Amino acid sequence: MTDDFFQPVSGITLARYAGVPTFMRLPHLPPGHPRRAEVDVGLIGMPWDGGTSNRPGARHGPRALRDASTMIREMNRATGVEPFKAMNIADLGDAAMSPVGQDGALAALTDTIRAAVGDGIRPLSVGGDHLCTLAVLRALGGPPPGLVLLDSHTDLFPPYFGGAALTHGNPFRQAAAEGLIDPARSTMIGMRGTAYGTDDFDHADELGIRIVTTDRMLQDGLADTAALARERAGQGPVYLSFDIDFVDPAFAPGTGTPEVGGPTSQQALTVLRALAGLDLVGADLVEVSPPFDTGGITSWLGASVLFELLCLMAPQGRSFKVA
Amino acid sequence: MTDDFFQPVSGITLARYAGVPTFMRLPHLPPGHPRRAEVDVGLIGMPWDGGTSNRPGARHGPRALRDASTMIREMNRATGVEPFKAMNIADLGDAAMSPVGQDGALAALTDTIRAAVGDGIRPLSVGGDHLCTLAVLRALGGPPPGLVLLDSHTDLFPPYFGGAALTHGNPFRQAAAEGLIDPARSTMIGMRGTAYGTDDFDHADELGIRIVTTDRMLQDGLADTAALARERAGQGPVYLSFDIDFVDPAFAPGTGTPEVGGPTSQQALTVLRALAGLDLVGADLVEVSPPFDTGGITSWLGASVLFELLCLMAPQGRSFKVA
Amino acid sequence: MTDDFFQPVSGITLARYAGVPTFMRLPHLPPGHPRRAEVDVGLIGMPWDGGTSNRPGARHGPRALRDASTMIREMNRATGVEPFKAMNIADLGDAAMSPVGQDGALAALTDTIRAAVGDGIRPLSVGGDHLCTLAVLRALGGPPPGLVLLDSHTDLFPPYFGGAALTHGNPFRQAAAEGLIDPARSTMIGMRGTAYGTDDFDHADELGIRIVTTDRMLQDGLADTAALARERAGQGPVYLSFDIDFVDPAFAPGTGTPEVGGPTSQQALTVLRALAGLDLVGADLVEVSPPFDTGGITSWLGASVLFELLCLMAPQGRSFKVA
Amino acid sequence: MTDDFFQPVSGITLARYAGVPTFMRLPHLPPGHPRRAEVDVGLIGMPWDGGTSNRPGARHGPRALRDASTMIREMNRATGVEPFKAMNIADLGDAAMSPVGQDGALAALTDTIRAAVGDGIRPLSVGGDHLCTLAVLRALGGPPPGLVLLDSHTDLFPPYFGGAALTHGNPFRQAAAEGLIDPARSTMIGMRGTAYGTDDFDHADELGIRIVTTDRMLQDGLADTAALARERAGQGPVYLSFDIDFVDPAFAPGTGTPEVGGPTSQQALTVLRALAGLDLVGADLVEVSPPFDTGGITSWLGASVLFELLCLMAPQGRSFKVA
Amino acid sequence: MTDDFFQPVSGITLARYAGVPTFMRLPHLPPGHPRRAEVDVGLIGMPWDGGTSNRPGARHGPRALRDASTMIREMNRATGVEPFKAMNIADLGDAAMSPVGQDGALAALTDTIRAAVGDGIRPLSVGGDHLCTLAVLRALGGPPPGLVLLDSHTDLFPPYFGGAALTHGNPFRQAAAEGLIDPARSTMIGMRGTAYGTDDFDHADELGIRIVTTDRMLQDGLADTAALARERAGQGPVYLSFDIDFVDPAFAPGTGTPEVGGPTSQQALTVLRALAGLDLVGADLVEVSPPFDTGGITSWLGASVLFELLCLMAPQGRSFKVA
Amino acid sequence: MTDDFFQPVSGITLARYAGVPTFMRLPHLPPGHPRRAEVDVGLIGMPWDGGTSNRPGARHGPRALRDASTMIREMNRATGVEPFKAMNIADLGDAAMSPVGQDGALAALTDTIRAAVGDGIRPLSVGGDHLCTLAVLRALGGPPPGLVLLDSHTDLFPPYFGGAALTHGNPFRQAAAEGLIDPARSTMIGMRGTAYGTDDFDHADELGIRIVTTDRMLQDGLADTAALARERAGQGPVYLSFDIDFVDPAFAPGTGTPEVGGPTSQQALTVLRALAGLDLVGADLVEVSPPFDTGGITSWLGASVLFELLCLMAPQGRSFKVA
Repeated sequence: MTDDFFQPVSGITLARYAGVPTFMRLPHLPPGHPRRAEVDVGLIGMPWDGGTSNRPGARHGPRALRDASTMIREMNRATGVEPFKAMNIADLGDAAMSPVGQDGALAALTDTIRAAVGDGIRPLSVGGDHLCTLAVLRALGGPPPGLVLLDSHTDLFPPYFGGAALTHGNPFRQAAAEGLIDPARSTMIGMRGTAYGTDDFDHADELGIRIVTTDRMLQDGLADTAALARERAGQGPVYLSFDIDFVDPAFAPGTGTPEVGGPTSQQALTVLRALAGLDLVGADLVEVSPPFDTGGITSWLGASVLFELLCLMAPQGRSFKVA
Repeated sequence: MTDDFFQPVSGITLARYAGVPTFMRLPHLPPGHPRRAEVDVGLIGMPWDGGTSNRPGARHGPRALRDASTMIREMNRATGVEPFKAMNIADLGDAAMSPVGQDGALAALTDTIRAAVGDGIRPLSVGGDHLCTLAVLRALGGPPPGLVLLDSHTDLFPPYFGGAALTHGNPFRQAAAEGLIDPARSTMIGMRGTAYGTDDFDHADELGIRIVTTDRMLQDGLADTAALARERAGQGPVYLSFDIDFVDPAFAPGTGTPEVGGPTSQQALTVLRALAGLDLVGADLVEVSPPFDTGGITSWLGASVLFELLCLMAPQGRSFKVA
Repeated sequence: MTDDFFQPVSGITLARYAGVPTFMRLPHLPPGHPRRAEVDVGLIGMPWDGGTSNRPGARHGPRALRDASTMIREMNRATGVEPFKAMNIADLGDAAMSPVGQDGALAALTDTIRAAVGDGIRPLSVGGDHLCTLAVLRALGGPPPGLVLLDSHTDLFPPYFGGAALTHGNPFRQAAAEGLIDPARSTMIGMRGTAYGTDDFDHADELGIRIVTTDRMLQDGLADTAALARERAGQGPVYLSFDIDFVDPAFAPGTGTPEVGGPTSQQALTVLRALAGLDLVGADLVEVSPPFDTGGITSWLGASVLFELLCLMAPQGRSFKVA
Repeated sequence: MTDDFFQPVSGITLARYAGVPTFMRLPHLPPGHPRRAEVDVGLIGMPWDGGTSNRPGARHGPRALRDASTMIREMNRATGVEPFKAMNIADLGDAAMSPVGQDGALAALTDTIRAAVGDGIRPLSVGGDHLCTLAVLRALGGPPPGLVLLDSHTDLFPPYFGGAALTHGNPFRQAAAEGLIDPARSTMIGMRGTAYGTDDFDHADELGIRIVTTDRMLQDGLADTAALARERAGQGPVYLSFDIDFVDPAFAPGTGTPEVGGPTSQQALTVLRALAGLDLVGADLVEVSPPFDTGGITSWLGASVLFELLCLMAPQGRSFKVA
Repeated sequence: MTDDFFQPVSGITLARYAGVPTFMRLPHLPPGHPRRAEVDVGLIGMPWDGGTSNRPGARHGPRALRDASTMIREMNRATGVEPFKAMNIADLGDAAMSPVGQDGALAALTDTIRAAVGDGIRPLSVGGDHLCTLAVLRALGGPPPGLVLLDSHTDLFPPYFGGAALTHGNPFRQAAAEGLIDPARSTMIGMRGTAYGTDDFDHADELGIRIVTTDRMLQDGLADTAALARERAGQGPVYLSFDIDFVDPAFAPGTGTPEVGGPTSQQALTVLRALAGLDLVGADLVEVSPPFDTGGITSWLGASVLFELLCLMAPQGRSFKVA
Repeated sequence: MTDDFFQPVSGITLARYAGVPTFMRLPHLPPGHPRRAEVDVGLIGMPWDGGTSNRPGARHGPRALRDASTMIREMNRATGVEPFKAMNIADLGDAAMSPVGQDGALAALTDTIRAAVGDGIRPLSVGGDHLCTLAVLRALGGPPPGLVLLDSHTDLFPPYFGGAALTHGNPFRQAAAEGLIDPARSTMIGMRGTAYGTDDFDHADELGIRIVTTDRMLQDGLADTAALARERAGQGPVYLSFDIDFVDPAFAPGTGTPEVGGPTSQQALTVLRALAGLDLVGADLVEVSPPFDTGGITSWLGASVLFELLCLMAPQGRSFKVA
């Protein structure tokens, strides 16, 4: 049972553009807040883009997504899930990540997530660039989760720029090397665009990660693609990472390395909903870059993705038939 | 038979970006103009957004749509319809709606539409927010028309903001209460996004209005969805209302309450064309909000929607086979 | 003496673009918060533009200004004032103003301000459009303050749009009629642009309000203009209202009714600082309209204006000589 | 005596963003209109940029300026002039200039202006790029006027691009060669920026045109600079051409060849007003390029410039003391 | 075998946003460069929009496309083709086309292309507006190629604007008249939007060119549509022209005459790839207009289209199976 | 004597928006080019923003400035200087700075500059954020130069973000500590905005650097301010660093940490020109951040600043009297 304390500020009593913007208009529970122990899922900002190899700006993502997320209402019209009734959800604030100094910033994020996990909170983390996900995975503890990645890139690239160990191009190569994910239960969906070569696909093959390109996904169908990922993940713990560049830049221009030829927002939401049933120990949305977000539509899409992720993290919602 | 007077200024003789911009480059016939009695369909601006609960700006819609509509040519390539040859169409100007004071503004609009209807003109109204449609319905007279609504929202919501009777969230709830539409012949297509709950869908059920969500429309197919609406509407009078947020925000960012996961513009135009055959006593396009219209693409889409609406209002166009 | 509780979140420990954005990164003390009684000055959002006669959008002002204000540091480099050390300042949240229904919205604002004043808090209100100021003045209580207005318009216009009593064009006409300001101690600075006629200037003359146009201000000098306003205000209570359209649209494009030919931001800040010494019972910044704020520079300027207003409301700051 | 017919649509009865946008909300009197003979000054659009050597887009200027000009009210607050009371002014529509084919387009413009002049109308022409001015000068007839040019360039450049005779870089070189202006009574104000060399300044010297650079203007003072131009022009006919790039790009980004380091809008309007007393046979505003006009502020400034030009063309306005 | 000299600057050693931007980071080989004889395919800019009937700006296309193309990596993930390994490709610079004077500009382009062809280089030309294609076709020499056009317009329109012979609306009418293309082997794909009438379709019928509208393409399927074009083209030489307005404006807002209701970028790339096997003597991408390219997404798409065109021009790439 | 090789591509023969964009349309001489030894002044890009504490994006500065700089003509109209005739100037390309890893990136820049200096080239470096300047100073060699800084911040701040040694907030604190500048001959001009406190000003006092705030500069006059800096610098070597945030954000919105209340572009150029006579061993322009550069006006201003810096680095130009 939930508590009124954990309900979003209603759009009926205070207009949605009004008030201090927290994620989803939920209560703000920074570290030390007395009610953190009651939280089931915590939204945590990762305002950092220090691993970005191309256009920066994802450090501004959490604020823009807080703003856009105040438009989100309580019920998922497509599935009937009401996450705020099903769980106690809160805005836990942002990790204090320095814009300079990669190691310190990632360590600060790992500490922040670890503290939340220690309080029994499953993290829904909001980037920031994709290298943040590595710091989150380091904090989860427990057996390595299967990974479901929705992204136009594998982020399995070898180090580049003269050997820089970590960029937003290789969090999963590093995570696999550190044993933080279970490749055999992992699926990467949405790859497309030009490539440096086959190194990353080859590496996925070696690790045992399954890759489904955008074209393959559209040929096989969205439902079957999601079913494949669910089947591979099985019953164990899963981490779901959603890079906004999974979606075509017409729907998500505000990102650092867009790739044309991607799915529509309708297709993206459909895939997400078809992933219901995973045992999610955490999830994230990354790579929303507000300085490149013409008209703010990327943030609006990102806020909807965050809501769908909350629905996926919720226990079986009450059924509500539409259409 | 039409008259040269009612033909759009040709793009051959005067470049399309030149000249005083009226809707579709048609003659401007404000109230009192001697030739109003010859008009079959009148484009009427509704520059008002006093019912808007979220982002305002639709008051600027008519001007932006006049501007964009000067790009529209004479023939519908997809259907062969030539509305300007089939009917006398004119720009009747804007209703004088005060930006402050809801009752007065709506009354002024009702008066303006009623005057046109009294002159034997069918209105194609250009918003402005969706609450304007209520004022139009009040002016139509005659038996209550069936409603075909293309929108991502039902606009059947209960009053909110402490009981404010009328907002752009409830024109059809109020219209039904006033007996201005025939629910049994009404269909609402395109609903999606997060919801406050099921109140609006439940109310539709009670009234007997049929709702087809975006996902349902895409599963059933565009042609079958349109056929359902046509079948429900039957042979009687119909009013068609097109809220630009029916379309995905990648195609229509310039609106107050966008909902991601919507149809493409190609799908939207296809549905519209498949509605041919309705006995339209009026139609409108609403919720284009230029301040949020990055690059003006929403206005371009809106102008094309207006043209399709004109084609739907035209008597059977001459047949012209393409492809 | 201030309390660490009332200090802004430091930019040293958390990057300025990170965290939940409150005004100036100050603590958020909504109604009912146990520490409100300790607050000296409260920032209160007025997210409403229901009096706007031209381009809307000021309802989005408080959120944009919260965002931009997180860039403000602790000390006024020009004057040495450190307002957060001199007073307890807090973000009191937004008034719950319905976007539809003018009377209710203004009453809700008056109630919100009155509650703050009742708690011994001087309000620094953040618009929203200029009609909000009327609701604030109604809440202040005490003897009518002198008014210092920085604005390109007098906002003393007769009712228009068929007699609508209240718009953002006449809050001060109404305030004078209600005895809420003391005309003899009031000065309006910055008027320019095209005019309907001389009605508003004539009305100012009748009331005894002194008007200083932009051109006159630049000819007389900024210091002398401010001195005139200070002299007229004398020792009694004063209310300072800053309409962002006081500044030229090159510096403040994000507003509803810009007037070209205005002062620079450097001139605007200089005038503000030269007003030091007024006994301010309240102040506001209004008419920042984010949908028209290309590049967000208006919000940055607005945040700086809010900081200068805080400095003016502070007790004599400690002296700090620069350059 | 003026006629109600020639008064702008009032902002009191119809909101300024509403209605079909003509210049200044004046009546639209295309060629052949029965009341053209009553017009004193006619606003004529020149939607053409076929002489543009750098960034195009000025062809869209007339429409954007019509839109922005609907914000202009009736009285000049700075000078008290009320041009719509002092003269019959109308929107004469746009010249039918083909976007391809320079000779034909310029000839069409010359014909359009000549027809207006033949009707006893003084033209206030609205560009369009600066080469349009040549076509206007060809149409004026009568003794060659002195020229007052406000511009950051002399537009006296030799032919370039392999000998193309005419571009927007040389209308006045050509006009002088054709005897269309009187160099001895001509003054060019505002030149600045990088230069190809001294050819254009040398040519001005040879012709006897006086050049006042931006820096010189700011050193000498705005009043003295205007006085110099008035003195040189003397009592004979004068043509005033205002290139929007006279103003700094912070105030007028929407132009093809901006030059930084220019005057503010306040300085620009002050110079214009100080030119009162010239015997203007025509005037123009050119080089507003909407595709580059971030936030539309250039069009707002341009509309104000058009209003000031109307005031300069008006017979001595009634006196109205401000500040 | 290729040469390191002809490899793009690596994104591993120099970040993609760094360095002097040439097309695809390839070497810049202007006329006279000693290694031009080694070039197989040359990218040539056509910075000109003098045939544009509506919104200009395509003259800025080559520079924006150079910038965006630096993001392109070496391998086509969808097909495995590696064009930079398969051929020597270079940036040959821009043709020196004067912005004023149509004949001279087109002649200069024809000369530039002819020189490249004379050096044994197949041109991949980058517009610029579509009239540029006429000048390219004039330079190719050899038997007239079949044309494959991807475009929302036929560009077969009769002269307009008072008889101006050539605009971007009729390059192919003129090319056919000059015998520069082989109509019997030509296919035009993607037509949609409003039409002046049936003149252009009728003319295609007379010539023997096959037209496939957007709706027809989506009904028949992308593969079948491409197969039809390949079949019609047969084994002879083919020229492929890609007008960016082939794609829906949500994906390509930066163009002069967008038409809503078009294919997605994913569909566009799929059609392109399905055209593999044509014997291309040249290709182009035209009508990217940066001033209207909100957020730059059109240039990103355009850069990807250029890459796909290079892949189509490459000899059979090595096979690489994905998904 | 200069060489045609080192002259910019003429705008007469190739339109300024055409061609591969190098700085000022100068020849591109990357390391190893045979003619580097002839270069007097080299423009070097520093595409890096890894020291940025707030809004990133300056890594994109060099490309945007190359683009804008193609608009620069050959002669300084205000001073008559013709730098391309007075010196051999070239575009030396960008330093290969990795976006991740601060130490490596700064070292790479130091190496790049040192190589140029070793070739006898004085560097005009183009940022990139202000921390780049530290790497440049490390490369200059010779006796420590006096510093003339035009900036709204001192960049003398203590380390922050938990002790991160180097950010764009402290290059000059570090440079002084390393003995890379001569404080007694250094002047910092333009400081304004809110401050953390007096630490930076106190540190300047201790070092012996003179600070002139924006307000002080405007009170003392631009000429006297420049004279002070020249006098302090004396006859020895000087380094001039221009942070674009010296100018008000209305003129330069495209920067990471703008401060309102700054000088106009006209005032900024005037100060620069008044610095003529310094013995410049190098100079830079930093902090242009294209993602925030609405309409690109910051890049246009930046290009003009680069040209003025070239003029300051030139030997006594030939005299040319204007106005």
